Amino acid sequence: MKESEEITKALLNFRNERDWEQFHNPKDLALAISIESAELLELFLWKNADEANVERIKEELADILSFSFLLAEKYGFDIKEIILEKIKLNGQKYPVDKAKGTAKKYDEL
Amino acid sequence: MKESEEITKALLNFRNERDWEQFHNPKDLALAISIESAELLELFLWKNADEANVERIKEELADILSFSFLLAEKYGFDIKEIILEKIKLNGQKYPVDKAKGTAKKYDEL
Amino acid sequence: MKESEEITKALLNFRNERDWEQFHNPKDLALAISIESAELLELFLWKNADEANVERIKEELADILSFSFLLAEKYGFDIKEIILEKIKLNGQKYPVDKAKGTAKKYDEL
Amino acid sequence: MKESEEITKALLNFRNERDWEQFHNPKDLALAISIESAELLELFLWKNADEANVERIKEELADILSFSFLLAEKYGFDIKEIILEKIKLNGQKYPVDKAKGTAKKYDEL
Repeated sequence: MKESEEITKALLNFRNERDWEQFHNPKDLALAISIESAELLELFLWKNADEANVERIKEELADILSFSFLLAEKYGFDIKEIILEKIKLNGQKYPVDKAKGTAKKYDEL
Repeated sequence: MKESEEITKALLNFRNERDWEQFHNPKDLALAISIESAELLELFLWKNADEANVERIKEELADILSFSFLLAEKYGFDIKEIILEKIKLNGQKYPVDKAKGTAKKYDEL
Repeated sequence: MKESEEITKALLNFRNERDWEQFHNPKDLALAISIESAELLELFLWKNADEANVERIKEELADILSFSFLLAEKYGFDIKEIILEKIKLNGQKYPVDKAKGTAKKYDEL
Repeated sequence: MKESEEITKALLNFRNERDWEQFHNPKDLALAISIESAELLELFLWKNADEANVERIKEELADILSFSFLLAEKYGFDIKEIILEKIKLNGQKYPVDKAKGTAKKYDEL
């Protein structure tokens, strides 16, 4: 079994033991990802990047990843495949010769 | 090489070709995750869960995952390990006998 | 008419001309506020605070405020009253002698 | 004094008593708005719109508004003015005859 499938299996197992599939529609999963992302963000609030609590970052990042894997599972997305596809798309939006060394958005390049 | 390492390698390669490491401090990566999460959320705005554009969901989810993998790499986190650890922690916060079938937060159980 | 009521009136007028009340349930209004907040956040991504585009900040801030006023209207909240009430609550969570000069969260004071 | 100025004055007073201006740069204020918005969003997670706790909505909305007023103050924006300006702009993006009764984004109209 692939690593990403093992992760998804563990997450589904946790969810199903609690009978939570009924709550996990895609819209609320998207809300959950945003909420966990903001909890991650809060660890950096009023701080420099190196002042945040690493243990807490680990936990919030795990939450974001977990809900992301669960949402991917809803649509049958393969984690590695969708990331590699998006890298390819981003390569067209941000060609190396234009994007190198600049943080500008693609529509400003 | 593990699947998650292959993904991270592809992301780092994309980043380094563009000399973007200079921008990717953990605080801004956390901002990026929040921003991409909101772009995912927007696909569901004013809509029922099944009315969202699946192709766009795929892309936004890939962005969230990409920045999450990149932030994990900053701290040397192993993707599978931190998710499995968090599942264990959540098992303590949400024991099956209390959490089954309810969407209540752990502090309301 | 109070200033906040004038603002709300203009927002409701805009909404009703477009027959958008049907979409503006409180949950989706909360989504809209999060989405607009992330658009504001994006103006600061990979940047120092003083490098963001002020004209765009003005627009995104106006969007956040607009959806916040519309959500307040749903519940009949008075803008000034709820802010002053929250300042009072925050004064209890963050007493001056403990909170002065520190960015710590109330549960760490 | 205008209502919005009274609100801003109360917020600045609270901030200055705690010597917090040093933390309140525009970028971190934008983070704060996103974080508070996600706390509002969490009140609706896994729920229908009418199941959320109204008292908590009041508090989170007050937090969003407070940080928004503080950020507006940083740039000298007038609350009513920027909202009315944005309504005008939105009127161009969403003309009544095209936008009436539809939740489509302006670039899909």
